[in-house]
Amino acid sequence: MNDVTEKTMNGAESLVRTLVASGVEVCFTNPGTSEMHFVAALDKIEGMHCVLCLHETVTTGAADGYYRMMGKPASTLLHLGPGLANAMANLHNLKRARSGVVNIVGEHATYHLQHDALLTSDIPAIAKTMSHWVKTSTLQTNVAMDCVEAISAASQPPGQVATLILPADVAWSEAAGPAAAKPAAAFAQVPEASIEAAAKAFKAESRVLIMLGTRALREEPLLQAGKIAAKTGAILSAEVANGRLQRGAGRVAIERMPYPISGALETTRGVTHVILVGAKAPVAVFAYPGKPSLLYPPEAEIITLAAPGDDAQDALERLAERIGASKSTPLLNSRQRPDMPTGALTPAKIGAILCNLLPDQAIVADESITTGRGFFKDTHGAAPHDWLSLTGGSIGEGLPLAVGAAIACPDRKVVSLQADGAGMFSLQAIWTIAREQLDVTICIWANRAYAILKGELVGVGVENAGKRAQSMLSLDDPPLDWVKLAAGMGVDGVRVTSAEAFAEVFGDAVRRKGPFLIELDLSS
Amino acid sequence: MNDVTEKTMNGAESLVRTLVASGVEVCFTNPGTSEMHFVAALDKIEGMHCVLCLHETVTTGAADGYYRMMGKPASTLLHLGPGLANAMANLHNLKRARSGVVNIVGEHATYHLQHDALLTSDIPAIAKTMSHWVKTSTLQTNVAMDCVEAISAASQPPGQVATLILPADVAWSEAAGPAAAKPAAAFAQVPEASIEAAAKAFKAESRVLIMLGTRALREEPLLQAGKIAAKTGAILSAEVANGRLQRGAGRVAIERMPYPISGALETTRGVTHVILVGAKAPVAVFAYPGKPSLLYPPEAEIITLAAPGDDAQDALERLAERIGASKSTPLLNSRQRPDMPTGALTPAKIGAILCNLLPDQAIVADESITTGRGFFKDTHGAAPHDWLSLTGGSIGEGLPLAVGAAIACPDRKVVSLQADGAGMFSLQAIWTIAREQLDVTICIWANRAYAILKGELVGVGVENAGKRAQSMLSLDDPPLDWVKLAAGMGVDGVRVTSAEAFAEVFGDAVRRKGPFLIELDLSS
Repeated sequence: MNDVTEKTMNGAESLVRTLVASGVEVCFTNPGTSEMHFVAALDKIEGMHCVLCLHETVTTGAADGYYRMMGKPASTLLHLGPGLANAMANLHNLKRARSGVVNIVGEHATYHLQHDALLTSDIPAIAKTMSHWVKTSTLQTNVAMDCVEAISAASQPPGQVATLILPADVAWSEAAGPAAAKPAAAFAQVPEASIEAAAKAFKAESRVLIMLGTRALREEPLLQAGKIAAKTGAILSAEVANGRLQRGAGRVAIERMPYPISGALETTRGVTHVILVGAKAPVAVFAYPGKPSLLYPPEAEIITLAAPGDDAQDALERLAERIGASKSTPLLNSRQRPDMPTGALTPAKIGAILCNLLPDQAIVADESITTGRGFFKDTHGAAPHDWLSLTGGSIGEGLPLAVGAAIACPDRKVVSLQADGAGMFSLQAIWTIAREQLDVTICIWANRAYAILKGELVGVGVENAGKRAQSMLSLDDPPLDWVKLAAGMGVDGVRVTSAEAFAEVFGDAVRRKGPFLIELDLSS
Repeated sequence: MNDVTEKTMNGAESLVRTLVASGVEVCFTNPGTSEMHFVAALDKIEGMHCVLCLHETVTTGAADGYYRMMGKPASTLLHLGPGLANAMANLHNLKRARSGVVNIVGEHATYHLQHDALLTSDIPAIAKTMSHWVKTSTLQTNVAMDCVEAISAASQPPGQVATLILPADVAWSEAAGPAAAKPAAAFAQVPEASIEAAAKAFKAESRVLIMLGTRALREEPLLQAGKIAAKTGAILSAEVANGRLQRGAGRVAIERMPYPISGALETTRGVTHVILVGAKAPVAVFAYPGKPSLLYPPEAEIITLAAPGDDAQDALERLAERIGASKSTPLLNSRQRPDMPTGALTPAKIGAILCNLLPDQAIVADESITTGRGFFKDTHGAAPHDWLSLTGGSIGEGLPLAVGAAIACPDRKVVSLQADGAGMFSLQAIWTIAREQLDVTICIWANRAYAILKGELVGVGVENAGKRAQSMLSLDDPPLDWVKLAAGMGVDGVRVTSAEAFAEVFGDAVRRKGPFLIELDLSS
């Protein structure tokens, strides 16, 4: 069949060829009937790595992980409205990570929609709630151009959700050839006025907080931020959740804005100026009775040095130069090798083990939730690594993020740090990890509870929660057995109950290539 | 605490008390921080059975199963926009089943929304895409009345999706007491003109198709339809997918409209009149190149005897009387006891075993997809049972349906007939089945493929699919091990590879109470 496709090409082939021509080389998919022509096109076209996922929440979480590491969009391929609906929780996280994706949703044939067949829903309306750009490609002659527009929208710095809806008849009808790639827009240079405004914040009586997010958390811009902090005494803070933080030994020391309100308010006490670099001014993740929403003094002046789509590195470099900090010595993390702990597992001991054993250039996909708050601070001195966190608070992104990061960077070890409750929202990702033989070490923190909610219950003012309320936060009846769950999807694993066992098994796993799961029993 | 709640009551308690007062006694939930006051209210209030689900797709699928069996709505409790998004695929199925649900979605505190905290999304816009009724309860003094309105909307025959959005501060602020229940609206009696119009269809030269859906598929209205068919020679057909069909020995023999277009067109060949009773005129689930969307002769007259919200039994009874069919003898299924098969498992052998062994009054939650097409016809002669099917085509409803049906009818055996590919979309339901110790026997058809798509690929015109396309439809690398997956969530199971082994294990499982899983290896 390959020989006769050049002259006659259907809409699906035109679309796939256009994606490949623009450098969109990965498609995370769970296709159905309306997407069969797209699937068939894969046989004729080289250059598209199609990754099958057993639930759509894996597709968009993986696309997010891919974008965070590659800085260019993957595509998804979703089955009608329900497929899109299943993908939305992680589209939310992807959006909040300021990542980009070309989200392709199959649709009924244009002439079939009027009949309200059982899978019909209002796909454009659903898509609009989580997309920056939505278009239904209603003409096979335009599908290639629509695709170029979608890629362009997805690549708009810092990244956007572009949803292209593809009716089945457009996919199967004869179409024009593929369209050529458009050059991607660059991160914008900020005007001199922004540098000036930020520079003015540094007065003798000021207390300046520099909030960093998006690309400002990469090694180079962080180095500039570190110089500014060294010169001025400004506080550096990463957003509470951010897409990708380059950290570890030799990199600028930075903490995340604490999740608990009390911790955040302590960090920002007395702050007079907040300089935003690819970040928002800090607000509470949730409201609590009698507590503020804003996590900084309301009278503080907010100065945007660089929006998320701006060139943060250039802006910070110019600011450093403007205030004479270019030669200052930033505070860098030194390599720490804490004593290897023994005995019962605690967050601090996990931190010590990770600090020792995280491989150089590891990619950490972190959805540790409660357990992770305890060990982030203990891993600043690990070997240099990238830390990807849950950006939108929609749990169930950790394992899919690991999939996407591992597809993006096959030569780097991916370490998935995964809370058990959150992990159950997208455990299907484990099958894709096995299927693609991705180099992922999965650590499950098995506290057998929605542990975060036990704190939140008190936080929102509920004292003395009774048995029925508590039971809604407990996952111990029956306990989940992650070693069996992983085995059911083709990944080997082991359960550990002590720090020394974790250290041994984790050390082995990160030295080997390929998938492995470790369940850490934290329930005792 | 219980003693002091009568006079001071927050919005969440007012809401829960109102639900219970109106007979909404079950809540399928996966709560988060913004829903903690609702959870806390459960401790103070008797009468609400709160069922924890580890992914929101389980909550709405279970609510659907519950409504199908109880005819009254359950509630859900979902965490913000992402929780709602995760619930939507099964809300789609629930809508298409014409079921009702009081879908409660937590929201940020009203004053917190403006800050665009990381979990913020446009919940009303998301909700509107899958709901008949949406309201944000912005005042704690009105929350009880808003809840009554939601229950009323959910109960509107035949059933609706009512989404009530509950801001956290409304939940935690002092509220008025609960509101009293409103009587639920009844299924409407159809006007005499509808009976007349339908009666006129039966002429010597007509060929009449009676399409039955919603409540028309219960035993009593089916009996009336059977009399009409016996008298007139009309063809009876259930919709291709329907919420609840009462079938088995002693009940009217009825087939579903075939899923393949060719089979459907054969059923409707020469039809001059289509009488709709709680059903739509049949249309293809998908469009295929060169094939029609309508599954009946376009010149046929369509007559609505009863809409889904009308009283189908009354309408059919009056029609039978009007045409003199009240004393006709309908064709009833006789009890069949086919020989018990042996050897390799096939759909026909599975059908024979189910026909013999399905317990009297079993509830079948059917998401068999490809495998099931082969054995439906073989089970007409089983003991009387209820058959719940996948109504919206959004796969991943079978196991959640089983949860809801088992909660609704604790004294009846629930049999989940589950395709493996579809099952992976909501396998988390197995944990809830274990947690609640529901009386569910789960049969997994492990063909290790999206087998339906292999046919669809050909159906949409793709011949000679290559390796890459085929690999998108295969689940055999690695194979899923459902016995391990179930064990990981606390349900025992066994794998069988022969008809005699299935018969033995299934027979044992349905005789015992409680959860059990059987994986049928159909891959060879």
